[in-house]
Parts: sequence; structure tokens; C-alpha cells
Amino acid sequence: MKLCILNPNTSAAMTAKIGAQARRVASPGTQILAVNPTMGPASIESHYDDAVAVLGVLEEIRKAEAQGCDGYVIACFGDPGLRAAREAATGPVIGIAEAAMHAASFLATGFSVVTTLTRTCVIAEHLAQAYGMNGFCRNIHGTDIPVLDLEGDNPPAYATIRAACEHALAVDRSAAIVLGCAGMSDLAARLSGELGVPVIDGVGVAVRLVESLVALNLSTSKRGDYAPPLPKPYVGLTSGFAWPARHA
Amino acid sequence: MKLCILNPNTSAAMTAKIGAQARRVASPGTQILAVNPTMGPASIESHYDDAVAVLGVLEEIRKAEAQGCDGYVIACFGDPGLRAAREAATGPVIGIAEAAMHAASFLATGFSVVTTLTRTCVIAEHLAQAYGMNGFCRNIHGTDIPVLDLEGDNPPAYATIRAACEHALAVDRSAAIVLGCAGMSDLAARLSGELGVPVIDGVGVAVRLVESLVALNLSTSKRGDYAPPLPKPYVGLTSGFAWPARHA
Amino acid sequence: MKLCILNPNTSAAMTAKIGAQARRVASPGTQILAVNPTMGPASIESHYDDAVAVLGVLEEIRKAEAQGCDGYVIACFGDPGLRAAREAATGPVIGIAEAAMHAASFLATGFSVVTTLTRTCVIAEHLAQAYGMNGFCRNIHGTDIPVLDLEGDNPPAYATIRAACEHALAVDRSAAIVLGCAGMSDLAARLSGELGVPVIDGVGVAVRLVESLVALNLSTSKRGDYAPPLPKPYVGLTSGFAWPARHA
Amino acid sequence: MKLCILNPNTSAAMTAKIGAQARRVASPGTQILAVNPTMGPASIESHYDDAVAVLGVLEEIRKAEAQGCDGYVIACFGDPGLRAAREAATGPVIGIAEAAMHAASFLATGFSVVTTLTRTCVIAEHLAQAYGMNGFCRNIHGTDIPVLDLEGDNPPAYATIRAACEHALAVDRSAAIVLGCAGMSDLAARLSGELGVPVIDGVGVAVRLVESLVALNLSTSKRGDYAPPLPKPYVGLTSGFAWPARHA
Amino acid sequence: MKLCILNPNTSAAMTAKIGAQARRVASPGTQILAVNPTMGPASIESHYDDAVAVLGVLEEIRKAEAQGCDGYVIACFGDPGLRAAREAATGPVIGIAEAAMHAASFLATGFSVVTTLTRTCVIAEHLAQAYGMNGFCRNIHGTDIPVLDLEGDNPPAYATIRAACEHALAVDRSAAIVLGCAGMSDLAARLSGELGVPVIDGVGVAVRLVESLVALNLSTSKRGDYAPPLPKPYVGLTSGFAWPARHA
Amino acid sequence: MKLCILNPNTSAAMTAKIGAQARRVASPGTQILAVNPTMGPASIESHYDDAVAVLGVLEEIRKAEAQGCDGYVIACFGDPGLRAAREAATGPVIGIAEAAMHAASFLATGFSVVTTLTRTCVIAEHLAQAYGMNGFCRNIHGTDIPVLDLEGDNPPAYATIRAACEHALAVDRSAAIVLGCAGMSDLAARLSGELGVPVIDGVGVAVRLVESLVALNLSTSKRGDYAPPLPKPYVGLTSGFAWPARHA
Repeated sequence: MKLCILNPNTSAAMTAKIGAQARRVASPGTQILAVNPTMGPASIESHYDDAVAVLGVLEEIRKAEAQGCDGYVIACFGDPGLRAAREAATGPVIGIAEAAMHAASFLATGFSVVTTLTRTCVIAEHLAQAYGMNGFCRNIHGTDIPVLDLEGDNPPAYATIRAACEHALAVDRSAAIVLGCAGMSDLAARLSGELGVPVIDGVGVAVRLVESLVALNLSTSKRGDYAPPLPKPYVGLTSGFAWPARHA
Repeated sequence: MKLCILNPNTSAAMTAKIGAQARRVASPGTQILAVNPTMGPASIESHYDDAVAVLGVLEEIRKAEAQGCDGYVIACFGDPGLRAAREAATGPVIGIAEAAMHAASFLATGFSVVTTLTRTCVIAEHLAQAYGMNGFCRNIHGTDIPVLDLEGDNPPAYATIRAACEHALAVDRSAAIVLGCAGMSDLAARLSGELGVPVIDGVGVAVRLVESLVALNLSTSKRGDYAPPLPKPYVGLTSGFAWPARHA
Repeated sequence: MKLCILNPNTSAAMTAKIGAQARRVASPGTQILAVNPTMGPASIESHYDDAVAVLGVLEEIRKAEAQGCDGYVIACFGDPGLRAAREAATGPVIGIAEAAMHAASFLATGFSVVTTLTRTCVIAEHLAQAYGMNGFCRNIHGTDIPVLDLEGDNPPAYATIRAACEHALAVDRSAAIVLGCAGMSDLAARLSGELGVPVIDGVGVAVRLVESLVALNLSTSKRGDYAPPLPKPYVGLTSGFAWPARHA
Repeated sequence: MKLCILNPNTSAAMTAKIGAQARRVASPGTQILAVNPTMGPASIESHYDDAVAVLGVLEEIRKAEAQGCDGYVIACFGDPGLRAAREAATGPVIGIAEAAMHAASFLATGFSVVTTLTRTCVIAEHLAQAYGMNGFCRNIHGTDIPVLDLEGDNPPAYATIRAACEHALAVDRSAAIVLGCAGMSDLAARLSGELGVPVIDGVGVAVRLVESLVALNLSTSKRGDYAPPLPKPYVGLTSGFAWPARHA
Repeated sequence: MKLCILNPNTSAAMTAKIGAQARRVASPGTQILAVNPTMGPASIESHYDDAVAVLGVLEEIRKAEAQGCDGYVIACFGDPGLRAAREAATGPVIGIAEAAMHAASFLATGFSVVTTLTRTCVIAEHLAQAYGMNGFCRNIHGTDIPVLDLEGDNPPAYATIRAACEHALAVDRSAAIVLGCAGMSDLAARLSGELGVPVIDGVGVAVRLVESLVALNLSTSKRGDYAPPLPKPYVGLTSGFAWPARHA
Repeated sequence: MKLCILNPNTSAAMTAKIGAQARRVASPGTQILAVNPTMGPASIESHYDDAVAVLGVLEEIRKAEAQGCDGYVIACFGDPGLRAAREAATGPVIGIAEAAMHAASFLATGFSVVTTLTRTCVIAEHLAQAYGMNGFCRNIHGTDIPVLDLEGDNPPAYATIRAACEHALAVDRSAAIVLGCAGMSDLAARLSGELGVPVIDGVGVAVRLVESLVALNLSTSKRGDYAPPLPKPYVGLTSGFAWPARHA
């Protein structure tokens, strides 16, 4: 099985980190294709960044489809372009916020999200609502660490994130932590060990979920709103995105 | 006051129709700039079309900001890019689905939406949920009329839409109709007269709502998640969308 | 166009303030009729006050209909009698809580309400729920300033309200303030300037919303529960309210 | 114990029916005072009727307080003035829609309401939402029988109501019926026998609920929004409703 | 009328306390059968305790049915086995959490729960959600007093509970307290007197509610999911629970 | 990895079918232990059956823990005992309704459940609500096929189920089917092929989800309400369930 782990921002260092995490958790025999777009923002920290990044997500899906990928992970906590990707891809698509929140609901009756910039907390709130996870998500905590500060090791960032997790557990009556950025994926195991609760990295969960769906021969329903886009003219800068020519 | 009425698809005929409707309802002294992107899909009938169209929406907002527009209407019933546009624009931004649903809640305790393709009903459902209007929106009815069939006069389409409205009123216990496509904006008055209930065109309502906000000196809060995007590198096809360079 | 701005309490000073605010924001050509009932409580600070005040609201609507008013604003943050008024009036009717909350949802993904007596916070909560705005309304803060202390200038009240707004912004992760009393309508612009976020006065918004609906030829649906009341005997103190005689 | 069973409309025949039903179900030793206002509409079939009727409800509560009533039932399915009555009364107050819906939730995981005019269905919907009973209330069915047609025996009305109950059970997957009018209170037992499911009359349930609260020494909390109204001037037609003079 | 007040844990001291409270509030002529299972946990403080205790609940219902009991109270705040009991019993069944929360919603627009172990707060939250009471239940406070510490008088426990109630009233903007354990039933009156708000003991309310339903000839609907269990083989330790043999 | 697939009813034929399905989908290296209790009902078709079956579920978990099982699937669509099992087990526990509904939300924006007896539809509704999946679950359809009729091949049952699926797709505007019984697990692939939409068997999904959690080193949080039960006396028939003795 070949899975495309798609980092929607253009940071190669982040992609490498995400790819490493994906390979660490993938089943034997699963091939991980970790990619990022060649277009779009270096990091996604606003509705605007998110909206523009979607184009790159769709472009990478087109390329991965051509390479025969069986399933997709969108590895940014805002799950940019998730629904559009489900229309465009043949195989199943999971976002890491989606994966992490659902998994948390299997492990605890309440969880807290610890994320990067406070201004992105609302995005996570909206996703929790859209996924039906708002009854489980007790609160969302911003740390105001910029996404790209998580590209490599960053001991002060680790300390801040850990403190935010401890605070969340103390005040939210929650029993698990969801990490709100793909760039935190390498911290989950250590935090979990130190805090004594499940600390959930969406990249790992999403890889396993997509593997599972592919193994079960389950993919996005093509009846209704996730059917392939209809053929029609696309013009200008995005003319290459016209359907179905671009997948012909 | 100068308002930008932004048709997110690239159909000039549709833009002309929308612009005409906007001018018909605008206050004296309001200048209407009706535009559509030079990039993107000819019509928006899927999550995918919607996602790609957002780029053009943001591009038109950039251009309109440069021309000193005071407020914005996103004139497609999926309200593509609404939140990103709120970050990017100085003036207020309203989507036509948002406008129409809120207005309907002022006129009736329950309304029905009549829209184009059945596959887009889910998009309207998600918007009603996101706007808090799901308690008022009793049902959403697809007519399976393609968006571009509404570019000009189309008597059979009118008959189909009217029949769908009558059916909705009969089965939904609703008291108003929201038309689910900017391309239906010229039909509202006639339908309302024939059906004896408010039939709401979001273009008209949105124009007046944005005018109102501008007149009241109210605009998008720049505290929190609608603050301007953060400066950062953007590369490739969308490099022109980097913030703040593109607005410098 | 002639609009009736209806202060449901009997304070002439408050009516004058509300009328001035309405005239300040109204479009050229809009005639503002600012009225208050000749029956009912001096201020509305409980469910009981609210319930009794409704009679005066309906009486003023009857009078305003006779004068050919085209639309109505109910200028008390509890929106007393809103649904009954919609049955009784020919033109559209908007409450100021309704107007302010909806407008806030166009400007921010979360807002806080700052109001008068703490005991009225629940009334605002119930309205937010009824209007579908509870997903946007993050919290409601009482200042325990009596309504009539807001009749004229009141520097200590201003300081208290401003402090409550600052507190709300600090603890609610909200990005806009809704002022929870018509008597605060003259404070919105100053507060907004000082706080750097939209501070929303429902009177101003409601005037513009009703203007918009009238301009769009949209009014309350007369199909279903907002149809005119049925003719029937009314006796005793309220016999004058019998329908349709009172409007004959 | 003395209970006031308050028919909010002015139909003496309806009051007699409601009083008889209340006496039939009351405990030994409970004295039933069945009253209706001397002001207000003959029946309540709209938001407008409901709003005006509240004044009479409050007047009857004042009189009943003076007579030492220990608790109150508001015997109209719209529960007019319930919250205001809770402020004004010393003893507990229950509405019959409230009583019936809560009781139904103890007997079935889903119930249907069968009521009078279709235009009042929305009122029942709003109450179900306000009481938290919307998860149990599967649907609301109008029969378009006017309220006053239920003053005495009315075999055709019975047949229509029974047919509506059967239809509701067949299509709603519900297991109990709530009768949506005090005027149907004499039909519950017969319908229940014929249909084989609980058919719930709110008058009976409310009498027993109020008795229970009084016996348990429980009454409306006077902390917060149900505290007595604040003293203040009331003028004009409703000057007699000023608080606290009217209860002095 | 004969009512079975069923303490689901096996503490005879707790059963005696609950029985005494039930007799104190019951109507003249109501016979109270206070029982506890001969199987199961000494106290219920987890999902696991709750799940095992249900078997004893069902066994006691079988025995009480044989003795002609007319109705049932499940006197543990987790309402263990409530739905299964409704299938098994002929008469109505009410849980004390259910009773207390519904009653609180008649007395206040918001209440707080004060309970025993913090780990059981989630159970109360889930019940509030299931009963539709989550809009009224503002918060749930654990005191970390073990259930069995409430078997007799316990002045330090009283002080802790009272402090928790005061804290809840101060921070939750609620107007009533629901006591979250049958073992607190003897404290309600004293707490209510000292705190000046309704403090609700579910045992007392549930006794009166079941009495009311029985008096009204209302019982669990046997149409749909509360119909008697279907006959089928049961084996092993629980073979005695096979239906209908066990009730033959 | 060793997983316990726990059929909560006592039908060995059903257990064999479930075990076969589990082995078919499990990863290489995963050992499947398919068990059913030696106590309890032959099938679970009511709240009562469900409640009694939980004891057997807990007993099998005790035995499986002793055998070093790493994770658990509860293979009945009512997910009996799920929360209690999470307290009792060291490894993660997933119910098949939970698994199927969550998976469906990854594949479609709306799904329908097709289940056995109509009386169990409410149980599925309550689970959808508890899991946050009610926004995705458009409807639940009973076929009135008894659970044990699904033990082996049953062509008429297949035809009935297929017809119910087709009906659901036609009327619910849903895009995927969730099969509402472990006994239908062998039908999913065939139905999916014939209907052209994802038809989801919870057994398969749950096996893969638990595998995933174990592989990711994620298990039930032991902080808060899923912590191990507290030690305390258990008496009578269920004395063997006392904690922690039974796991000593």
C-alpha cells in the first residue's frame, strides 16, 4: 500500500519530520510518500494561509493519484481542503485534526487541544464542531509558538507546550491531550510519558486510519457531494486545475 | 460608498446579472463594482470548485482594496473564502448565503432553501450550521439545474424552481424561501409575487447588509482570528498571494 | 420611508436618546418616528417587566401602522413582543438584541455581551439561543447598572461598562462587544475607538436592517405563525387589543 | 394545599373543563381554584393572543397570591407568561406544555404532539427547545381545530384528533402522545385506551407536579432572574401592574 | 399505592436513609418499599460499579413486581439501569438524577450539581445531556467525598458539601443546587435553609413524580423500545434473568 | 499483538462469524481471540438484554486481560458496557457501532444505519448522539429481522437488508450505509458492490481501529472517569466482580 502524507505548507523540514513520524508508525509494507506543495505559504496560521494552501494540496493529490497512491493524510491541523480532496482523490483522505480528535474520543470522555497561535484556536473549534467532536473537546489552548518554530528541536517550545498541557489537564477536567500542529508530532510520546495521559499526534493516528480504510477496501463515497467534480472550464492562474482534463 | 460585488465564478454573464441586481437594490450614492476573477472555475458546484475559486476571490479582494472599496459581497451561495476574505479585507465582507439565511430568520420562523444541484445541498447545510441558522432552515431542496443554465432567462428553469418552492412550502411547514444561487437573483421578486411568501435573494440582502455595516462604521474585528494574515514566504504558482507584500 | 423606533419602556429621556441615535445612522430620506408607550414600566429589568411592556409595544405598533410606518425596531435588548409584533405589523420588525447579535456574527467568530443587571443575563442567553447566535456569543457580562442610570451621560457608568468590556475581551477570547441595552447606544463609538474592536449598538444596526428589508420589499411572511392574529373577542382591560377591530 | 389552575384565555366553559380535570386528578386535601382572567382573548392561537393574554395571567396570579395559593398551573399549551409568573408568584409555577413534555420523556424515548391550529406548531417547537425536550419531541401535528371548538363535547373533533394521533404514531416512530391544548384534557384517557399508548394531558400532570413541589417545600428560586421584579413606576393602562405596590 | 424505592448499592444504612426520606415526603396512603439488591457493589462510583449494579436493580424490580409495586425510584444519582428497568417494570420508573434535574428546571433557569467523587462528574454530564437538561445544568462540582462516607451523619462532609454549593452559586450564575448522591438526601432541607436557594434531593422529587404518574394512570409506553424484553435463552450466571420465565 | 473480539451475546455461531470477519481484516501478526460470554442472553435486542449482557462482557475482559490481550472490540451494535470496559481493561476498547459510525463520517457527509429490530433504532440513535455522530447519521432503519436469523446465510434476510439499504439511500440523501448488527458483517462487501456506496461493517473497522491504537501505543486514559474502578466489597451473585480482587 502506498500512502501520501501531504504537508500542506511548503516547509521541507516540516515535511521531513512528518514523513519520519509517518514511517515510524506505518505498518510493514506500507510505503510512505511524504510531500509538500511547490506552491503556497511556508506555514498555515490563518484562514487566509489555509485558503491559499488548498491549491497546493489539490495539486499534490493530482500528482499522487498519478503515482497510484492508495490513500491520503492531510498533515496540518486545520485540515485544509479536506472535502475538496475527498472529491478529487480515489482513495480515502483523513485530516490530522480529524484523526486526532476522533481517536481522543475513543480514549477519554473529554480532551483538550494544545496548539500554536491563539488566533488559530477558532479554526480548531470550528473543526471540532464540524466533526461532531465538540462534546468531547473541552477546550483549546494557544501557546503562541509560531508553526515554523517547531521545524526542528526547540527545547523552550517543548517547555511551553508541556506547561500548556499541564494547565489544560488542571483546568479542563480532561483526560487526554490532542496536539494541534503536525510540527508537534515528535513530541507526543515524550509528553505522554511525562504527563501520564494519552497525548495524541494526529499524523500517527491519521496514517493508521487511512491504512485501515484502505485495508478494509473502504473509500470516500462517490455518491452525492463527494462525487468527482464536474467537467467545466477553468481559466487563468488555476486553469491547470480544471476537471477532468487534469486527471486525464 | 464603493462596494465590491464579487462573483466567485468566471462567468461574465452571471456577473452582469449579479451586478444589475446589486445596482437595483443599492442606496443612492452607493457605487457598485461587480467583478469576477480572471482565474478559476466557470461555475461552483462542488467542494473542489469552491476550493479553487477561493484564490480568485482573494485576488479580486486585493484589487478592490487597491481601488478603495469599502465593503464586499461574495456572490455565490457557498460563500467561498468568506473567512479568508475577512482577514484580507479592511471593510466588512458578507456572503450571500449568510445574508439570505439571516434575513430569512427575521421574516419567518422557518425557511426552505431551493438550490441548483442536489450534490450542493450538503454545502448549504454546513453553512446553515456554521451560521447558527440550522434551527430556522427546515430543509434544502436541489433542483438539479446546473448553475450556468441560470446565466440568462430560462423559462423551463423558472418552472422547475417555482415547482420546487411550492413543494418546499407544502412539505416543510416553512414560511419563506431562500434562493440558493446568485444566478437566481432575478427570479426572487416574481416568485415572491406568485407564491405569496418572501422569496429571498442573497445578493440583494448582502448588498444592503454591507452598506449598513459601512454606514455604521462597523467592520471585521481585527482582534483574534480575523486579524490580517501574518507576513511569511509564499512560493510557486501562488507566490503572488504572499502577505503583506501583495497589499504593499 | 418611515420607520418606527419603539422604545418599549416609558422613559422619554431614553426614547430621545434612542431616537437621536436612530436619526444619526438612518439613510437620507428615512423618517424616524421614535416613540414609547404610554403604558407600562419605566424600565425593563425582569421577565415581569418584559411581559407587561409587550402590551405597550403592541399599542405603539397599532398607532404606527395607522401612520403608515414601513418598518419597526423594538429598542430594548430583551426584544419584548418581537414575535407578536411580527404578526401585528405589516412591515418588518427587528429587535435590537437580534440585530446586534447577528451583526456581531458578521464581524467576529465570537462576541461578548455587556449588559445592565446581572439578573437579565439569562434573558440575553435565551435570545442568543433562540436566534441561533449561541455559537457566537461566548459570554454575557452584567454590570449591575440599572437601566435608567443610562438615561443621560453617566461617567461612572461609562467607566464600569468599559471595564466590563475589557474584562470580557480578556477572558472570553472574543473579538467584538455587543452592548446589552438601548441606553448604551451613545457609548458604542467611543468604546469602539478606545478598545480597538467593534462595539455594537443594536439600535443603529436594527435601523439599518429594517431600512434594508423595506428597501428590498421584504417583510414578515404572512404564511404560518406570523399571519395576522385571528379575529376573536377580547375583553376587559385589554379589550382594545382585539383583532381585527383595532386595526379596522 | 391550595392550587390555582389558571386558564389564560377568557372562556368560562374551558375553565370549567380544566377545573374539572384538575379536581379529578388532585390529591385528597388539595383545593383547586380554577380561574380565568377577566381581560384578554377568548382563545390563544397566535403569538399576539399569547402576548396579550399574559397580562391576565399576571393579574390572576396577583389575586391568587392574595388568597394564599400555594402553587400555580398555567393551563394553556403555549405556557404564556411562565417566566414572568415565576417572578411574581411565591409558590412554584408549571405550564401544561412543560408538564406534559417532561412527563412524556419519563414514559417514552420519543413522543409526538397533537395540537390545534397548524400555525401554533411553531410555538410548541420553541417550547420543546426551551425546555430541553426537543430530543424527545419527534414531531408536532396540527389538526386545524380551533381552540374553542374544544369547549364541550365535539365528536368530529375527537375523530380528527384520534386520526392525527394514529398518524403520528405511524410516521414518527414515537411511543407516546402529548395533547397540545388544555381543551383536550378530557380526551386523554379515552385516547390512551383506544391507542394503547400514553396520551398525556398537561393539565393533569401539571397539577400533580405543582402539588409535588409544594409538598416537597420547593419553590422558584428567588436568586437571580426569578427574583421578584424590582420596584419602579408603571404608567397608563397597566399602571396597576407596578411592583411591589400591587402586592403590598 | 405501593412504591419501590430501589437503592442500587448494597449498603443497608444508605437504604435506611433513603427509605426514611421517601417516607417523609410520600403522600398519605403511599406505601414505601425501600430495598437494595443482595448482589453488587457497596457503592457506585464508576462506570464499572454502575454496570454491575444494574443486575441487582433488575432483580429487585422482578421481586417488587411480584409484590405488586405500582412504581419505582432508582435511588442512585447515576440512574443505573433506568431504561432496562422501564422495559422490565409494569409501572413507571424514575431515576433520582432525572427527577432532580427536571425539577430544578422548573425552579431556576440554571442549576449546579454538587456530587461525590470528581470522577463521577462525567456520568452526571452524560445524564444531563441524555435528559435534555444540559441547557439548564451550568456545571457539576465534585467534592471527592466517597459515597459511603454519607451513610450516617458526617459533619465534615456537610461542611465540604456546603462549601461546594456556595462556590457553585458564586461562580456558575446558577440559582439552585442539585445534590448528586442519594446519600445526601437528608442534607437538602438544611442546605436550602442556609443557602437561601432550592437545594434539590432527587429521592424526594422522584418519589413524588412516580406517585404522580401512578395517580394519573400513566406508565411507561409499551410501544417501541420500552416494550417488554423478547423471550430468549439466557445462560450461566445470569440465566435467572431470562425473559419471560423470570416473570412467569 | 493479541486482540480480543468480544461478542456480547452467547451465540457461538455468531461468534464464529465475527471471528472469521475479524481474522479476514486483521493485519499479519495480529492474533484474534474471538470469544463470547458463558453468561447472558442469546441475542441483544432490548435495553434489558443489553444491560444483562454487560456482566458477560466484563467477565470476558477479565479473562482476556489475564491472557495478555492488547486491545478489545465489543462486537454488538449497541456497544454494551463500553465505558465500564474502558475502566476495566488496560488496552483500548472500541465498540462496533462507534467504529462504524466514525468511519462513515470519514467517507461521507451523511450516512444511514440499517439494523435489525425497529425497537433497537432508538439505541442506535442514542449512541450516535453520545458519539457526536448525530450530525452525520441521517436516519436509522429497522428491518425487523431478529438478530439470530443472521447467524448463518439467510437469503431472504439479505434481500430485506438490501432493500432497506436502497430505500435509505433513496430517501435520506445519504452516501454510505452502516450495518447495524455484528451478524451482518459478512454482507458488507457484497452490499457495497451491489449498491455502489461504502457499506460499513463495524467489526472490520473496529478491529483495525484497535490495532491502530495499540500500534500507536495509545490506550484509554487512566486519568478521570476511565481510571480503574475503586476497590470495594461486592456481594452475592456478582461478588466475583469485585475490584481489584478479581484482577489480582
